[in-house]
Amino acid sequence: MPDFKTLLSERVKETERIIAEYLPVEEGHQKTILEAMNYSMNAGGKRLRPLLVMETCRLFGGDRKDAEPFMAAMEMIHTSSLIHDDLPCMDNDQYRRGKKSTWAKYGEDMGVLAGDALIVEAFAAASRAFEVTKHPYRVGEAFRILAEKTGIYGMIGGQVVDVELTNQPIPKDKLDFIYRLKTGALLEASMLIGAVLAGAGQQECAKISQIALNVGLAFQIQDDILDVTSSQEVLGKPVGSDEKNCKTTYVTLEGIEKAREEVKRLSDEALSILHSLDVKNEFLEQLIIMLITREK
Amino acid sequence: MPDFKTLLSERVKETERIIAEYLPVEEGHQKTILEAMNYSMNAGGKRLRPLLVMETCRLFGGDRKDAEPFMAAMEMIHTSSLIHDDLPCMDNDQYRRGKKSTWAKYGEDMGVLAGDALIVEAFAAASRAFEVTKHPYRVGEAFRILAEKTGIYGMIGGQVVDVELTNQPIPKDKLDFIYRLKTGALLEASMLIGAVLAGAGQQECAKISQIALNVGLAFQIQDDILDVTSSQEVLGKPVGSDEKNCKTTYVTLEGIEKAREEVKRLSDEALSILHSLDVKNEFLEQLIIMLITREK
Repeated sequence: MPDFKTLLSERVKETERIIAEYLPVEEGHQKTILEAMNYSMNAGGKRLRPLLVMETCRLFGGDRKDAEPFMAAMEMIHTSSLIHDDLPCMDNDQYRRGKKSTWAKYGEDMGVLAGDALIVEAFAAASRAFEVTKHPYRVGEAFRILAEKTGIYGMIGGQVVDVELTNQPIPKDKLDFIYRLKTGALLEASMLIGAVLAGAGQQECAKISQIALNVGLAFQIQDDILDVTSSQEVLGKPVGSDEKNCKTTYVTLEGIEKAREEVKRLSDEALSILHSLDVKNEFLEQLIIMLITREK
Repeated sequence: MPDFKTLLSERVKETERIIAEYLPVEEGHQKTILEAMNYSMNAGGKRLRPLLVMETCRLFGGDRKDAEPFMAAMEMIHTSSLIHDDLPCMDNDQYRRGKKSTWAKYGEDMGVLAGDALIVEAFAAASRAFEVTKHPYRVGEAFRILAEKTGIYGMIGGQVVDVELTNQPIPKDKLDFIYRLKTGALLEASMLIGAVLAGAGQQECAKISQIALNVGLAFQIQDDILDVTSSQEVLGKPVGSDEKNCKTTYVTLEGIEKAREEVKRLSDEALSILHSLDVKNEFLEQLIIMLITREK
């Protein structure tokens, strides 16, 4: 078996080939928005969410063809949230990953519409699963999860509270809510959709949810820790920005030691639940460990 | 049989009861956005699109329970487009139907997020059809239509071209594109979804699409005519605004006589296709006639 890094790089490439099949051809009167969508989708994400869909589907022995439309869908939903987050009335970011943000390149109106379009195209992509599946009710359930975890009881719910509390101290319960939903919900959706499409049972799905939520929280807290302990060279972005912006984080609320303990607790629990399953996917386990223990 | 107006008012009320079942309860940390969504959904629309879903489903003898989730979904998609259209970076409208627009009441960031949330909740609502249906592949096809006609090859595609050509003369082919997609696509989706859920065949669906597109175009051109020929009292909004804003419309491009002829041609054709079907829904026919011949 090739080492994890080689396998990861292969599977990211494979994921990008799959996503590309769902991107629009840039022609027609509405060409500008098609360009804006492709620009955002090709801006160099880690493709983490589609990877989690694929690997959790693989874990339970599911049919890859059912998962592919949802891999594209998850990446589109994630990208749409970045586009709208960058808008002047939100975070007002002109750059993302060293490139102009979508609205800065195509105009604010196109930024709004490109984000809208990617949400809709996510569901359009996912609906193509009905053309190939032998399990329409599973696909229906995956659809429900995609919508629920994206919407007001998922990612968007988290964004709302985050936006409302900008430049304000955030109490612990609301910070938990934001962390759980803003990042956690899409990670949960990705793993849960992979599991549901593969026909995992209720108990297995509950375990997958818990793993994903733990990973999401640990990922977020690790982010807070790195902002304090890392260097700009390693992280690729300025450190200490949370303190400078008076931002409430897990570290400012609980201290660095408690934050580290919490990451460890969440990770250990996630891996122990993963090991309690009757099925095994070595690569998925490595992927989860990478997410939690990352140094950048 | 009660007269059309009585029946219409009853069915609009029924539609509003159905939609209400899919609206969020205003509680939790993310309460602001739930309020903003309900505010926009209850701002007094005509409920035209859900009515078309229900009545086309009835035309083909479909199961109402399958249609209800899509009735809510269509109204949510329509409302989301109004919220985002009103944003400062789009039409910059502070009022809609005599009430503050969503962003003017809840802030621009919440305006963006409330529109996003309604798109997502539309698909969440629609996914509830899987819990009740005996025909999951039909529901899957309805999902595909909802996404396709909302997205870049539907409503959003039309918005993009409309936004790009603001304050510019619009050539005929692009005006047709905007009219066909910006309004037409959602009317088409509504009728088509009703038909598909009821198990209508391919030929019947093709006819339904043609009827809906004709109605959409006629509706739009009638709008242009009324802006020239009506009075503020009848229309409830200022007339002559298209000329004042140097807006290209069907009337400015083709003249009022040709516009009237086109409305008549499109309407006659739509009704003649409707009559060519083996099934009948008197109320749907009246509804279509009302849409086309409206004086406000």
